[in-house]
Amino acid sequence: MDEKFVVTPWEVKGEIDYDKLVKEFGTQKLDEKLLKRLEKHTGPLHHLLRRRIFFSHRDLDKFLDEYEKGNRGFLYTGRGPSGSTHLGHLVPWMMTRWLQQKLGLKLYFQMTDDEKYLFKEGLELEQATQYALENALDVIALGFEPEELRILIDTQMAGAMYPEAIKVAKRLTFSTAKAAFGFTNEHNVGEIFYTSMQAVPAFLPSIPAGRPLPCLIPLAIDQDPHFRVARDIIPKLGYPKPCILHARFLPGLQGAGGKMSTSAGDADTQVIFTTDNAKTVKEKVNKYAFSGGKDTVEEHRKAGGDPDVDVAYQYLLFFEEDDAKLKKIHDDYRAGKLLSGEMKAILIETLNRFLGEHQRKREEARKRLHEYLATPDEFRPKGKH
Amino acid sequence: MDEKFVVTPWEVKGEIDYDKLVKEFGTQKLDEKLLKRLEKHTGPLHHLLRRRIFFSHRDLDKFLDEYEKGNRGFLYTGRGPSGSTHLGHLVPWMMTRWLQQKLGLKLYFQMTDDEKYLFKEGLELEQATQYALENALDVIALGFEPEELRILIDTQMAGAMYPEAIKVAKRLTFSTAKAAFGFTNEHNVGEIFYTSMQAVPAFLPSIPAGRPLPCLIPLAIDQDPHFRVARDIIPKLGYPKPCILHARFLPGLQGAGGKMSTSAGDADTQVIFTTDNAKTVKEKVNKYAFSGGKDTVEEHRKAGGDPDVDVAYQYLLFFEEDDAKLKKIHDDYRAGKLLSGEMKAILIETLNRFLGEHQRKREEARKRLHEYLATPDEFRPKGKH
Repeated sequence: MDEKFVVTPWEVKGEIDYDKLVKEFGTQKLDEKLLKRLEKHTGPLHHLLRRRIFFSHRDLDKFLDEYEKGNRGFLYTGRGPSGSTHLGHLVPWMMTRWLQQKLGLKLYFQMTDDEKYLFKEGLELEQATQYALENALDVIALGFEPEELRILIDTQMAGAMYPEAIKVAKRLTFSTAKAAFGFTNEHNVGEIFYTSMQAVPAFLPSIPAGRPLPCLIPLAIDQDPHFRVARDIIPKLGYPKPCILHARFLPGLQGAGGKMSTSAGDADTQVIFTTDNAKTVKEKVNKYAFSGGKDTVEEHRKAGGDPDVDVAYQYLLFFEEDDAKLKKIHDDYRAGKLLSGEMKAILIETLNRFLGEHQRKREEARKRLHEYLATPDEFRPKGKH
Repeated sequence: MDEKFVVTPWEVKGEIDYDKLVKEFGTQKLDEKLLKRLEKHTGPLHHLLRRRIFFSHRDLDKFLDEYEKGNRGFLYTGRGPSGSTHLGHLVPWMMTRWLQQKLGLKLYFQMTDDEKYLFKEGLELEQATQYALENALDVIALGFEPEELRILIDTQMAGAMYPEAIKVAKRLTFSTAKAAFGFTNEHNVGEIFYTSMQAVPAFLPSIPAGRPLPCLIPLAIDQDPHFRVARDIIPKLGYPKPCILHARFLPGLQGAGGKMSTSAGDADTQVIFTTDNAKTVKEKVNKYAFSGGKDTVEEHRKAGGDPDVDVAYQYLLFFEEDDAKLKKIHDDYRAGKLLSGEMKAILIETLNRFLGEHQRKREEARKRLHEYLATPDEFRPKGKH
């Protein structure tokens, strides 16, 4: 991997060259033709697709082949619950919610409390499970009904998942896992096994269905190695290779590559949580969001700002749906007509409108959380009790 | 390890030097003093202890310390269900049943269908689980009531066991697992993880009890490496180190070291299954049991036989409880008064008496099997549902 950046399921840093990543990971860029084909089924494309924030895929064409034959399958994505949900997590989930609605597919959402426990020094399992339950509220808040969204918390689903995970594990040598994930002899045996658990939701819904179902996984591209491995193994179990849609990362407030993450130093200077109130959002954006503007108003008016590095503008790419409005912001900033403070004010308003609504739905979700939590019993083979 | 013999959880071969094994594994031989102390609680010792077929231990003294303080704990043993039960499997179970009765302790019996699936080429998981259910009949047939015996089939208990197994796994590096089990890069990631599952029943009963319970594990010594590893980790989880009692192996019919096992070539020439009928037992013993007798009756009468290598006699050490009767058989054989055919006839009668009764109880067990199968719900923390 290029030394300037690192993208693994457990570490993302540096200025990410997404074109290079596509090459290194061996994925395919989303092209106009494929998006047009998707659009036939979804109607007008989501802005995260229009703007190529979802930019890469594996076998989306094959997923559509099946879809068009009436073999509709399901969606799968997930979250490693090691803390509170932030805006960076929401991006693939928003897109997934849209696909769920437009394609009429069920979403299986995995909460990998086992993974986070195994990989994070000092994190207790019970705490990871607690985060899973809190994070689940943010998923539900995106508008799902319980029949559209089943949340699989690994430790609570182990009764159904572990017996399937060992079928993956039997076909995965340490040697292969090492090559995919960079394991050393000092990694613990749970970390080494874990990817087997992440593979399971990609085929688990086929069991109660009694037939192999196509699976589409929208995710941030750092999770791709899990499925690179799983795609080789799952067909040996009699299920189709899962298809993948890859997203870029929402950068941290201070920009400079990488992804929004609480792991990178002081979280408050990098991260906006879904539970931050309007005042906090305003303060964080004004104080920490890296600006692409010039040092003085005078200079900015004359030379213009650089939206490509301006974090406030970058966030608008993710959260402002209106293309025309966005273009005007871009052009005005470039021309020096829009000042950095004004750019930040637009973002603050956009985020606070979004988060106000999100937080209201998130609290409503709390009452209905239990309706969304999958149980091992849901995944028994047809007719078995 | 000595090149002449190999003892690992997955391979036993060669002429086993048990004294050397005690040294290499770092266990302690059972001595007179400790057995006397045990006898105070159990009454007259079981013949498998009197004859040092159970010959070695880890911390049995500490288990008795707790027992004498009224902190009574539980027993744990298990089986890797890769086929039908044979006499070699029954040995530690008979002893365990005796300890269960005499000490008034509950037995948790693990059926490691996941292990056998992961380690055995060509074995399907569903088949391993089926073997577990069949093998369970042989355990129950030893006379347990459901409140004395809880059978934990790993894949059916994963809901309770996997969340605990990852707590073990987090504290076990590949490096340590490699040293204990001889793993290579070509082992699969399930094999590497698996010992974490085998550790769990050594502390799982403490969870519903709401306090750390002492655990005593009678087993064949090839399983010791699992607990050598687990004993370092379990105290870090707040539970006591499990204590161990080690058994020698019942040899195969053809003798020559190792243990009775279906893996060693043609099973029928090495193994007596618990479901073999009287005729089959007679045929197998007469045809295959290695004899310590001389080539001709005349020579045998003159020089006498060697009971130490005579498989029929060796089996009587395991299955004939009466010390006086056994001594007479031994001495008569040594003196040439008892012929090899007669020795075999004694064994055949002993085994068929034992197996006739066992098979009757085994069929009765079939009706009540479900009463003995543990469920994840039994292991919830007190007061949690």
